[in-house]
Amino acid sequence: MNYPNNIKKTIKNPLSHKNRGMDLEDELNLTNEYYLETNKALIYKKPTPIGVAKVSYSKEGKVIDRAFFKEPSTLDYNGLYRGKYIEFEAKVTELKTSFPLANIHAHQIHHLKKVIEHQGITFLIIKINGLVYLLTGDHFVDYLEKNNRKSIQYDYIKEKGYLIPYGFRPILDYLKIVDNIYFKEEA
Amino acid sequence: MNYPNNIKKTIKNPLSHKNRGMDLEDELNLTNEYYLETNKALIYKKPTPIGVAKVSYSKEGKVIDRAFFKEPSTLDYNGLYRGKYIEFEAKVTELKTSFPLANIHAHQIHHLKKVIEHQGITFLIIKINGLVYLLTGDHFVDYLEKNNRKSIQYDYIKEKGYLIPYGFRPILDYLKIVDNIYFKEEA
Repeated sequence: MNYPNNIKKTIKNPLSHKNRGMDLEDELNLTNEYYLETNKALIYKKPTPIGVAKVSYSKEGKVIDRAFFKEPSTLDYNGLYRGKYIEFEAKVTELKTSFPLANIHAHQIHHLKKVIEHQGITFLIIKINGLVYLLTGDHFVDYLEKNNRKSIQYDYIKEKGYLIPYGFRPILDYLKIVDNIYFKEEA
Repeated sequence: MNYPNNIKKTIKNPLSHKNRGMDLEDELNLTNEYYLETNKALIYKKPTPIGVAKVSYSKEGKVIDRAFFKEPSTLDYNGLYRGKYIEFEAKVTELKTSFPLANIHAHQIHHLKKVIEHQGITFLIIKINGLVYLLTGDHFVDYLEKNNRKSIQYDYIKEKGYLIPYGFRPILDYLKIVDNIYFKEEA
Protein backbone atom coordinates (compact mmCIF):
# COMPACT_ATOMS: atom_id res chain seq x y z
CA MET A 1 0.00 0.00 0.00
CA ASN A 2 1.33 3.38 -0.93
CA TYR A 3 0.78 6.43 1.24
CA PRO A 4 1.26 10.08 0.35
CA ASN A 5 4.92 11.02 0.11
CA ASN A 6 5.70 7.40 -0.65
CA ILE A 7 5.69 6.39 3.03
CA LYS A 8 5.06 2.66 3.20
CA LYS A 9 3.04 1.58 6.16
CA THR A 10 2.43 -1.90 7.43
CA ILE A 11 -1.14 -2.12 8.58
CA LYS A 12 -1.74 -4.87 11.11
CA ASN A 13 -4.98 -6.65 10.53
CA PRO A 14 -6.45 -7.59 13.92
CA LEU A 15 -8.43 -10.38 12.31
CA SER A 16 -5.44 -12.13 10.83
CA HIS A 17 -3.72 -14.50 13.21
CA LYS A 18 -1.96 -16.52 10.60
CA ASN A 19 1.01 -14.27 10.28
CA ARG A 20 1.37 -13.17 13.84
CA GLY A 21 3.78 -15.86 14.81
CA MET A 22 1.06 -17.34 17.00
CA ASP A 23 1.24 -21.08 16.86
CA LEU A 24 -1.63 -23.57 16.84
CA GLU A 25 -1.25 -24.22 20.56
CA ASP A 26 -1.60 -20.50 21.37
CA GLU A 27 -4.60 -20.26 19.07
CA LEU A 28 -6.32 -23.20 20.75
CA ASN A 29 -5.45 -21.97 24.25
CA LEU A 30 -7.01 -18.58 23.47
CA THR A 31 -10.02 -20.32 21.96
CA ASN A 32 -10.44 -22.45 25.08
CA GLU A 33 -10.09 -19.37 27.30
CA TYR A 34 -12.86 -17.77 25.27
CA TYR A 35 -15.02 -20.87 25.75
CA LEU A 36 -14.35 -20.71 29.50
CA GLU A 37 -15.13 -16.99 29.75
CA THR A 38 -18.35 -17.36 27.81
CA ASN A 39 -19.24 -20.49 29.81
CA LYS A 40 -19.55 -22.56 26.66
CA ALA A 41 -17.21 -25.39 27.58
CA LEU A 42 -14.52 -26.42 30.06
CA ILE A 43 -11.56 -27.50 27.94
CA TYR A 44 -7.93 -27.35 29.04
CA LYS A 45 -4.57 -28.32 27.67
CA LYS A 46 -3.09 -30.92 29.96
CA PRO A 47 0.27 -30.02 31.41
CA THR A 48 3.14 -31.83 29.69
CA PRO A 49 4.00 -34.81 31.86
CA ILE A 50 7.46 -34.54 33.38
CA GLY A 51 9.59 -36.72 35.58
CA VAL A 52 11.12 -34.68 38.38
CA ALA A 53 14.67 -35.83 39.19
CA LYS A 54 15.83 -33.22 41.69
CA VAL A 55 14.16 -30.53 43.79
CA SER A 56 15.38 -27.93 46.22
CA TYR A 57 13.75 -25.34 48.42
CA SER A 58 14.10 -21.60 48.00
CA LYS A 59 12.33 -18.54 49.38
CA GLU A 60 9.75 -18.87 46.60
CA GLY A 61 9.03 -22.47 47.55
CA LYS A 62 9.87 -25.81 46.00
CA VAL A 63 12.07 -25.50 42.89
CA ILE A 64 12.70 -28.21 40.31
CA ASP A 65 16.43 -28.43 39.57
CA ARG A 66 16.31 -31.31 37.15
CA ALA A 67 13.46 -32.95 35.25
CA PHE A 68 12.70 -34.69 31.97
CA PHE A 69 9.82 -34.48 29.56
CA LYS A 70 7.86 -37.73 29.41
CA GLU A 71 5.97 -39.14 26.47
CA PRO A 72 2.25 -38.44 26.83
CA SER A 73 -0.06 -41.46 26.78
CA THR A 74 -3.24 -39.46 26.35
CA LEU A 75 -4.17 -36.57 24.07
CA ASP A 76 -3.20 -32.96 24.80
CA TYR A 77 -6.60 -31.37 25.41
CA ASN A 78 -9.58 -32.63 27.31
CA GLY A 79 -12.69 -31.37 28.97
CA LEU A 80 -16.43 -31.15 29.16
CA TYR A 81 -18.84 -29.83 26.54
CA ARG A 82 -22.63 -30.08 26.60
CA GLY A 83 -22.41 -32.83 29.19
CA LYS A 84 -19.99 -34.85 27.06
CA TYR A 85 -16.38 -35.83 27.50
CA ILE A 86 -14.16 -34.37 24.80
CA GLU A 87 -10.48 -35.11 24.12
CA PHE A 88 -8.27 -34.15 21.21
CA GLU A 89 -4.77 -33.70 19.93
CA ALA A 90 -3.52 -30.73 17.91
CA LYS A 91 -0.61 -30.94 15.49
CA VAL A 92 1.03 -28.84 12.82
CA THR A 93 2.92 -30.13 9.83
CA GLU A 94 5.12 -28.14 7.50
CA LEU A 95 4.72 -30.77 4.81
CA LYS A 96 2.42 -29.88 1.93
CA THR A 97 0.98 -33.20 0.85
CA SER A 98 0.71 -35.33 3.97
CA PHE A 99 0.58 -35.41 7.76
CA PRO A 100 3.29 -37.72 9.20
CA LEU A 101 1.88 -40.24 11.66
CA ALA A 102 5.12 -40.09 13.67
CA ASN A 103 3.48 -36.98 15.18
CA ILE A 104 1.10 -39.19 17.17
CA HIS A 105 2.54 -41.78 19.57
CA ALA A 106 1.29 -45.39 19.55
CA HIS A 107 0.01 -44.94 23.13
CA GLN A 108 -2.01 -41.97 22.04
CA ILE A 109 -3.60 -43.89 19.16
CA HIS A 110 -4.49 -46.69 21.57
CA HIS A 111 -5.99 -44.15 23.95
CA LEU A 112 -7.99 -42.41 21.21
CA LYS A 113 -9.59 -45.75 20.28
CA LYS A 114 -10.50 -46.28 23.95
CA VAL A 115 -12.15 -42.86 24.12
CA ILE A 116 -14.31 -43.79 21.13
CA GLU A 117 -15.18 -47.11 22.78
CA HIS A 118 -16.17 -45.34 26.02
CA GLN A 119 -18.41 -42.91 24.09
CA GLY A 120 -16.28 -39.81 24.36
CA ILE A 121 -15.88 -37.24 21.60
CA THR A 122 -12.37 -37.42 20.18
CA PHE A 123 -10.60 -35.97 17.16
CA LEU A 124 -7.41 -34.50 15.78
CA ILE A 125 -6.91 -30.86 14.88
CA ILE A 126 -4.35 -30.75 12.08
CA LYS A 127 -2.80 -27.61 10.64
CA ILE A 128 -1.48 -28.23 7.15
CA ASN A 129 -0.77 -25.73 4.39
CA GLY A 130 -1.84 -22.99 6.80
CA LEU A 131 -5.34 -24.44 7.08
CA VAL A 132 -6.80 -26.03 10.19
CA TYR A 133 -8.89 -29.19 9.93
CA LEU A 134 -10.80 -31.27 12.43
CA LEU A 135 -10.49 -34.98 11.62
CA THR A 136 -12.81 -37.16 13.74
CA GLY A 137 -11.38 -40.07 15.69
CA ASP A 138 -13.54 -42.39 13.59
CA HIS A 139 -12.10 -41.14 10.30
CA PHE A 140 -8.59 -41.26 11.73
CA VAL A 141 -8.95 -44.87 12.92
CA ASP A 142 -10.62 -45.81 9.64
CA TYR A 143 -7.63 -44.43 7.73
CA LEU A 144 -5.17 -46.33 9.93
CA GLU A 145 -7.03 -49.57 9.39
CA LYS A 146 -7.28 -49.23 5.61
CA ASN A 147 -3.85 -47.78 4.89
CA ASN A 148 -0.45 -49.05 5.76
CA ARG A 149 1.17 -45.66 5.41
CA LYS A 150 3.36 -43.59 7.68
CA SER A 151 1.36 -40.49 6.95
CA ILE A 152 -2.15 -39.30 6.20
CA GLN A 153 -2.48 -37.90 2.70
CA TYR A 154 -3.59 -34.28 2.53
CA ASP A 155 -6.27 -35.34 0.07
CA TYR A 156 -7.82 -37.56 2.75
CA ILE A 157 -7.75 -34.72 5.30
CA LYS A 158 -9.42 -32.40 2.77
CA GLU A 159 -12.03 -35.01 1.90
CA LYS A 160 -12.93 -36.31 5.37
CA GLY A 161 -11.81 -33.45 7.61
CA TYR A 162 -13.81 -30.34 8.47
CA LEU A 163 -12.15 -27.00 7.84
CA ILE A 164 -12.09 -24.78 10.94
CA PRO A 165 -12.08 -21.23 9.60
CA TYR A 166 -10.01 -18.57 11.35
CA GLY A 167 -12.13 -16.03 13.19
CA PHE A 168 -11.72 -13.24 15.69
CA ARG A 169 -13.28 -14.43 18.94
CA PRO A 170 -12.80 -17.30 19.21
CA ILE A 171 -9.87 -17.67 16.85
CA LEU A 172 -10.64 -21.29 15.97
CA ASP A 173 -14.27 -22.09 16.70
CA TYR A 174 -13.88 -25.86 16.59
CA LEU A 175 -16.94 -26.44 18.80
CA LYS A 176 -19.14 -25.19 15.97
CA ILE A 177 -17.84 -28.16 13.97
CA VAL A 178 -18.31 -30.45 16.99
CA ASP A 179 -21.95 -29.29 17.19
CA ASN A 180 -22.51 -30.20 13.56
CA ILE A 181 -20.89 -33.60 13.82
CA TYR A 182 -21.82 -34.86 17.29
CA PHE A 183 -24.95 -32.96 18.29
CA LYS A 184 -26.73 -32.80 14.95
CA GLU A 185 -29.89 -34.50 16.14
CA GLU A 186 -30.18 -32.12 19.12
CA ALA A 187 -29.66 -28.88 17.16
CA MET B 1 -0.08 -64.45 67.06
CA ASN B 2 1.93 -67.11 68.84
CA TYR B 3 3.72 -69.89 66.98
CA PRO B 4 5.21 -73.10 68.37
CA ASN B 5 8.42 -72.49 70.32
CA ASN B 6 7.19 -69.00 71.02
CA ILE B 7 8.45 -67.67 67.68
CA LYS B 8 6.54 -64.54 66.91
CA LYS B 9 5.85 -63.98 63.26
CA THR B 10 4.58 -60.89 61.57
CA ILE B 11 2.14 -61.99 58.93
CA LYS B 12 1.66 -59.42 56.23
CA ASN B 13 -1.93 -59.17 55.18
CA PRO B 14 -2.03 -58.59 51.42
CA LEU B 15 -5.45 -57.01 51.82
CA SER B 16 -4.22 -54.31 54.13
CA HIS B 17 -2.82 -51.30 52.35
CA LYS B 18 -3.23 -48.88 55.17
CA ASN B 19 0.07 -49.61 56.81
CA ARG B 20 2.16 -50.13 53.73
CA GLY B 21 3.27 -46.56 53.49
CA MET B 22 1.26 -46.27 50.28
CA ASP B 23 -0.34 -42.88 50.11
CA LEU B 24 -3.78 -42.00 48.79
CA GLU B 25 -2.35 -40.88 45.46
CA ASP B 26 -0.62 -44.25 44.92
CA GLU B 27 -3.80 -46.05 45.90
CA LEU B 28 -5.87 -44.08 43.42
CA ASN B 29 -3.28 -44.42 40.67
CA LEU B 30 -3.28 -48.21 41.10
CA THR B 31 -7.08 -48.18 41.17
CA ASN B 32 -7.18 -46.18 37.94
CA GLU B 33 -4.64 -48.54 36.33
CA TYR B 34 -6.92 -51.42 37.28
CA TYR B 35 -9.88 -49.62 35.70
CA LEU B 36 -7.83 -49.09 32.53
CA GLU B 37 -6.66 -52.71 32.37
CA THR B 38 -10.17 -54.03 32.88
CA ASN B 39 -11.52 -51.47 30.39
CA LYS B 40 -13.94 -50.10 32.96
CA ALA B 41 -12.99 -46.43 32.74
CA LEU B 42 -10.35 -44.04 31.41
CA ILE B 43 -9.28 -41.96 34.38
CA TYR B 44 -5.88 -40.32 34.78
CA LYS B 45 -4.15 -38.08 37.25
CA LYS B 46 -3.26 -34.87 35.47
CA PRO B 47 0.42 -33.99 35.51
CA THR B 48 1.22 -31.26 38.03
CA PRO B 49 1.42 -28.01 36.09
CA ILE B 50 4.92 -26.57 36.06
CA GLY B 51 6.51 -23.45 34.65
CA VAL B 52 9.72 -24.33 32.87
CA ALA B 53 12.37 -21.62 33.37
CA LYS B 54 15.46 -23.19 31.81
CA VAL B 55 16.14 -26.12 29.50
CA SER B 56 19.23 -27.65 28.00
CA TYR B 57 19.95 -30.49 25.60
CA SER B 58 21.76 -33.68 26.48
CA LYS B 59 22.24 -37.07 24.82
CA GLU B 60 18.94 -38.20 26.36
CA GLY B 61 17.09 -35.26 24.86
CA LYS B 62 15.68 -32.06 26.28
CA VAL B 63 16.39 -31.62 30.00
CA ILE B 64 14.66 -29.17 32.33
CA ASP B 65 17.26 -27.36 34.44
CA ARG B 66 14.93 -25.09 36.34
CA ALA B 67 11.18 -25.11 36.81
CA PHE B 68 8.50 -24.23 39.36
CA PHE B 69 5.34 -25.92 40.47
CA LYS B 70 2.25 -23.94 39.54
CA GLU B 71 -1.06 -23.81 41.36
CA PRO B 72 -3.59 -26.08 39.68
CA SER B 73 -6.84 -24.46 38.51
CA THR B 74 -8.65 -27.72 37.88
CA LEU B 75 -8.97 -30.93 39.90
CA ASP B 76 -6.27 -33.61 39.95
CA TYR B 77 -8.03 -36.50 38.24
CA ASN B 78 -10.27 -36.57 35.22
CA GLY B 79 -11.56 -38.93 32.63
CA LEU B 80 -14.38 -40.80 31.04
CA TYR B 81 -16.73 -43.34 32.63
CA ARG B 82 -19.87 -44.84 31.10
CA GLY B 83 -19.94 -42.05 28.54
CA LYS B 84 -19.74 -39.37 31.24
CA TYR B 85 -17.12 -36.81 32.13
CA ILE B 86 -15.69 -37.34 35.59
CA GLU B 87 -13.35 -35.09 37.58
CA PHE B 88 -12.26 -35.22 41.19
CA GLU B 89 -9.72 -34.15 43.75
CA ALA B 90 -8.15 -36.41 46.38
CA LYS B 91 -6.84 -35.12 49.69
CA VAL B 92 -5.61 -36.49 52.98
CA THR B 93 -5.83 -34.77 56.33
CA GLU B 94 -4.06 -35.75 59.52
CA LEU B 95 -6.62 -33.87 61.58
CA LYS B 96 -9.17 -36.00 63.41
CA THR B 97 -12.25 -33.81 63.53
CA SER B 98 -12.23 -31.75 60.36
CA PHE B 99 -10.90 -31.36 56.81
CA PRO B 100 -9.23 -27.95 56.31
CA LEU B 101 -10.55 -26.12 53.25
CA ALA B 102 -7.13 -24.58 52.67
CA ASN B 103 -6.43 -27.93 50.96
CA ILE B 104 -8.59 -26.87 48.00
CA HIS B 105 -7.69 -23.68 46.10
CA ALA B 106 -10.33 -21.06 45.29
CA HIS B 107 -9.78 -21.69 41.55
CA GLN B 108 -10.48 -25.36 42.05
CA ILE B 109 -13.74 -24.67 43.89
CA HIS B 110 -14.80 -22.36 41.08
CA HIS B 111 -13.92 -25.07 38.56
CA LEU B 112 -15.79 -27.77 40.49
CA LYS B 113 -18.96 -25.63 40.39
CA LYS B 114 -18.52 -25.23 36.63
CA VAL B 115 -18.22 -28.98 36.16
CA ILE B 116 -21.54 -29.45 37.98
CA GLU B 117 -23.11 -26.74 35.81
CA HIS B 118 -21.85 -28.45 32.63
CA GLN B 119 -23.28 -31.80 33.78
CA GLY B 120 -20.06 -33.55 34.65
CA ILE B 121 -19.62 -35.90 37.59
CA THR B 122 -17.44 -34.28 40.23
CA PHE B 123 -16.51 -35.06 43.82
CA LEU B 124 -13.81 -35.04 46.47
CA ILE B 125 -12.10 -38.11 47.83
CA ILE B 126 -11.10 -37.33 51.40
CA LYS B 127 -8.96 -39.53 53.64
CA ILE B 128 -9.53 -38.72 57.28
CA ASN B 129 -8.88 -40.88 60.34
CA GLY B 130 -7.56 -43.57 57.97
CA LEU B 131 -10.92 -43.84 56.23
CA VAL B 132 -11.62 -42.80 52.66
CA TYR B 133 -14.83 -40.97 51.79
CA LEU B 134 -16.36 -39.76 48.56
CA LEU B 135 -18.12 -36.42 49.04
CA THR B 136 -20.14 -35.34 46.01
CA GLY B 137 -19.57 -31.93 44.48
CA ASP B 138 -23.18 -31.06 45.34
CA HIS B 139 -22.70 -31.83 49.03
CA PHE B 140 -19.41 -29.99 49.07
CA VAL B 141 -20.89 -26.84 47.49
CA ASP B 142 -23.91 -27.08 49.76
CA TYR B 143 -21.62 -27.13 52.79
CA LEU B 144 -19.66 -24.12 51.53
CA GLU B 145 -22.85 -22.16 50.99
CA LYS B 146 -24.35 -22.93 54.39
CA ASN B 147 -21.22 -22.71 56.53
CA ASN B 148 -18.74 -19.96 56.90
CA ARG B 149 -16.02 -22.24 58.20
CA LYS B 150 -12.46 -22.86 57.17
CA SER B 151 -12.90 -26.60 57.35
CA ILE B 152 -15.47 -29.34 56.80
CA GLN B 153 -16.46 -31.04 60.04
CA TYR B 154 -15.76 -34.78 60.11
CA ASP B 155 -19.35 -35.31 61.23
CA TYR B 156 -20.56 -33.79 57.96
CA ILE B 157 -18.23 -36.01 55.93
CA LYS B 158 -19.49 -39.08 57.82
CA GLU B 159 -23.11 -38.04 57.38
CA LYS B 160 -23.09 -36.96 53.71
CA GLY B 161 -20.02 -38.77 52.38
CA TYR B 162 -19.87 -42.35 51.11
CA LEU B 163 -17.26 -44.61 52.66
CA ILE B 164 -14.99 -46.24 50.06
CA PRO B 165 -13.90 -49.51 51.64
CA TYR B 166 -10.34 -50.76 51.09
CA GLY B 167 -10.17 -53.80 48.83
CA PHE B 168 -7.60 -55.83 46.96
CA ARG B 169 -8.15 -55.19 43.26
CA PRO B 170 -8.98 -52.39 42.93
CA ILE B 171 -7.70 -50.95 46.18
CA LEU B 172 -10.32 -48.19 46.34
CA ASP B 173 -13.32 -49.06 44.19
CA TYR B 174 -14.76 -45.57 44.07
CA LEU B 175 -16.62 -46.22 40.81
CA LYS B 176 -18.91 -48.59 42.68
CA ILE B 177 -19.99 -45.57 44.72
CA VAL B 178 -20.24 -43.48 41.55
CA ASP B 179 -22.56 -46.14 40.08
CA ASN B 180 -24.83 -45.93 43.11
CA ILE B 181 -24.98 -42.15 43.15
CA TYR B 182 -24.97 -41.14 39.49
CA PHE B 183 -26.22 -44.16 37.55
CA LYS B 184 -28.88 -45.45 39.94
CA GLU B 185 -31.72 -45.26 37.46
CA GLU B 186 -29.73 -47.20 34.85
CA ALA B 187 -28.60 -50.01 37.17
